[in-house]
Amino acid sequence: MNIKITGTGSYIPDTIETNENFYQHQFLNTDGSSINYPNEVIVEKFEAITGIVERRYAKPHLNSSDLGFFAAEKAIADAKIDPETIDYIIVAHNFGDVKHKTIQSDMLPCLASRVKHSLRIKNPKCVAYDILFGCPGWIEGVIQAQAFIKAGMAKRCLVIGSETLSRVVDKHDRDSMIYSDGAGATIIETTNDEGGILAHETASFTYDEAYYLFFGNSNNQELCRDTRYIKMDGRKIYEFALTNVPLAMKACLDKSVVNIKDVKKIFIHQANEKMDEAILKRFYRLYKTEIPEGIMPMSIHKLGNSSVATVPTLFDLVKNNKLENHTINKGDVIIFASVGAGMHINAIVYKY
Amino acid sequence: MNIKITGTGSYIPDTIETNENFYQHQFLNTDGSSINYPNEVIVEKFEAITGIVERRYAKPHLNSSDLGFFAAEKAIADAKIDPETIDYIIVAHNFGDVKHKTIQSDMLPCLASRVKHSLRIKNPKCVAYDILFGCPGWIEGVIQAQAFIKAGMAKRCLVIGSETLSRVVDKHDRDSMIYSDGAGATIIETTNDEGGILAHETASFTYDEAYYLFFGNSNNQELCRDTRYIKMDGRKIYEFALTNVPLAMKACLDKSVVNIKDVKKIFIHQANEKMDEAILKRFYRLYKTEIPEGIMPMSIHKLGNSSVATVPTLFDLVKNNKLENHTINKGDVIIFASVGAGMHINAIVYKY
Repeated sequence: MNIKITGTGSYIPDTIETNENFYQHQFLNTDGSSINYPNEVIVEKFEAITGIVERRYAKPHLNSSDLGFFAAEKAIADAKIDPETIDYIIVAHNFGDVKHKTIQSDMLPCLASRVKHSLRIKNPKCVAYDILFGCPGWIEGVIQAQAFIKAGMAKRCLVIGSETLSRVVDKHDRDSMIYSDGAGATIIETTNDEGGILAHETASFTYDEAYYLFFGNSNNQELCRDTRYIKMDGRKIYEFALTNVPLAMKACLDKSVVNIKDVKKIFIHQANEKMDEAILKRFYRLYKTEIPEGIMPMSIHKLGNSSVATVPTLFDLVKNNKLENHTINKGDVIIFASVGAGMHINAIVYKY
Repeated sequence: MNIKITGTGSYIPDTIETNENFYQHQFLNTDGSSINYPNEVIVEKFEAITGIVERRYAKPHLNSSDLGFFAAEKAIADAKIDPETIDYIIVAHNFGDVKHKTIQSDMLPCLASRVKHSLRIKNPKCVAYDILFGCPGWIEGVIQAQAFIKAGMAKRCLVIGSETLSRVVDKHDRDSMIYSDGAGATIIETTNDEGGILAHETASFTYDEAYYLFFGNSNNQELCRDTRYIKMDGRKIYEFALTNVPLAMKACLDKSVVNIKDVKKIFIHQANEKMDEAILKRFYRLYKTEIPEGIMPMSIHKLGNSSVATVPTLFDLVKNNKLENHTINKGDVIIFASVGAGMHINAIVYKY
C-alpha cells in the first residue's frame, strides 16, 4: 500500500497587484523613521532580492475559506472521487478568515468546517479540522494525513493550504510587498500504484526562534498600538533557513534512500527567490553535487508569497504544464520543503 | 503496546467572576431590543439551565498560551518525564491569544510554538502545532496523538486545551455568562501498562450545522459592526447535541466492546448542565440501562465553559481527588465526550 497525491487544484486570485502599485505607499523603518530614498529604489531593491514582480490579492468579498473551497473543488474533480468518500479535510492557514478591511480573524467555525459546508458533503464521518503551523502548514497537513492512513483511521484525505496575507499586512512596512493570497489543495489517499510518499521530516525550532515571525505593530507609530500585522525579522529568518532547511531536506532524502541524482524537482516554499536559491545551493553542497538545471520551479515572480498555498499551488501548476520549461513524469522523485513561522521546517520526498 | 495518559495538569485562573457581577450588564435581545425583566431574573434563569454560579477569568497580563504553558508544566511534572523527550506538542484552542481589551487573535507563531518556547524545550524534533476543532479540540488532539503513535511517528505527546473565552464575549448577550477561561494538559504515551485508549469516535456535522456557533455582531446595534464576538444558536445546538452526542458515545463504546455497566465515569464537555444531563439520559436510554449515581462529574457550577479546557481540567480534578464525591481507580473504564463549534462531536473510551 502506498500513499499518493491523486488530485491537485489551486486557486490563484485574479486581482494582480504590481510592484508599481506600491510607489505611492509611505514606507517607514521599524522605529517609524523615514527611509531616505524614493519608493522606486525601495521597490527595485525588493524585486532584486525576492524576485517578486507582482502578487495576487483576493477579491474583497472572498475570504480564505472561499479560496480553499475553490481549490478543493478542483482537486476533487482532478482525483475523480466522490466527495462523500473523503475521511479528513485538513485546512492549513495562519489567520483564519479576515474579512476585507477588518482586523479580526474569524475561525469560528474552523475553516475546514466552512470548506466542508461549501462542498455540500453530508457524511459526518468526514472529520474537518484546521492546523496552524506557519507556512509549512500544507506539507504538515499531508504528513498528518499520512499518519491517519498509516494508523488505519483514514483512506482518503483532502489537504488544503489557504491564506489571505493581503489582509494582515502593514502598509508602512516594505515587507508588505512580499505577501499575497491564494490556495492549493490535494487529495491524499492509499493506492496500489507505485511510488507516493517515501519519507518525511519535520522540525520545530522555538528555543530562540519562536518569534522570528510575529504579530506586531505598524511601522507608523501614529497608528493604533492595539492593531497588529504580520511582521518578520527577515535577516534572522534568512540565516536560520539557510542553516536548517538544507539539513532537514537532507535528513528526509537520506531516510528515503533515494540518490540525490535521482531527484527531478524541488518544490520549495516561495518565500524569497534569493533565499530559495541559497537553500538549494547549500542542499546540493551537502551532497557535493552540482545543481541540475531546472530543478527548482519558481512561481514567486508572479504570485508572491501566499504562505501555506505556495507549495501545493506550484506543484499543481507544474503537474498541469502551466509553468514554462517545467514538467514532471511518472516515476520522478520530487521533494517538497517549507519553512516558516514557528519556526517550523518540513520536507517530503515523493515519487510521482 | 497501549496508549495511556501518564500525566495531567490544569490551570484554573484565580479571578472569580460571580453571577452577581452580571447584574449591572445591559443585556439585549439579538435584534437589539430590551429584555423585559430585570437582570436578577435573567441571571436566575441562566443559572437554572446552565448550572453556572461562577466562572474564572484569566488575569489581564496572561494569554491563552500562558494558561496552556502553566497546565503543561504540571502535566510534565505529573508524568515525571524529561520535556526534551516529547515528540509532539498539540495545542487546541479557538481564538489564539487575545490580549486583554483588544479584539485581534494572535496566533503567529502558533500557540504550540509559544508553549514549547516557554517550556524551554530545545529538541527541534518535538513538533509543535495547533488544532482548531471547536470545544472538542482537546479530545481530537488526543486522537491525533494516538494516530502519530500508531503510525510510528511518536511515542510521547503533550496535548493541551487552552482558551480565554472571556476575551471574545459580547457583554450585551446573556450567553456571555456561559464562557470562561482555563487550560488542561495531558501527556499521552506508549506504555506496557494495561488499559489506555480502547476506542475513539469523531464526527463533523457541517451540512446544516456549520454555523450554529459563529463569530457575530454585538446585540447592541450601536457597537461597531466590524467587531465580532462568540455567538451561538443555543436552541439548535441543544437539539443537535441531544440527538447526536449519545449516538457518537454509543458508537465509541460499542467499538471498545466494553459493557455499559462497566463504565465508571463520563467526562463530558461542560457546556450546559441541563444539556449534559439530557445527553447522559439519552445515552443510557440507548442501552435501556439506569443511570448509575455519580457517573458524571461536573465542574461547570464553579468553572463555567472554558471550551477545549473543560474535559482535561475535569479529568485532572477527579484524578487528583479535588472534586467532592468523585474518584477514579486503576482499571476503571471512563468515557471522554465533547461537542462544539463546527459542529464537531467526539468521544474516547479509556481504561484508567
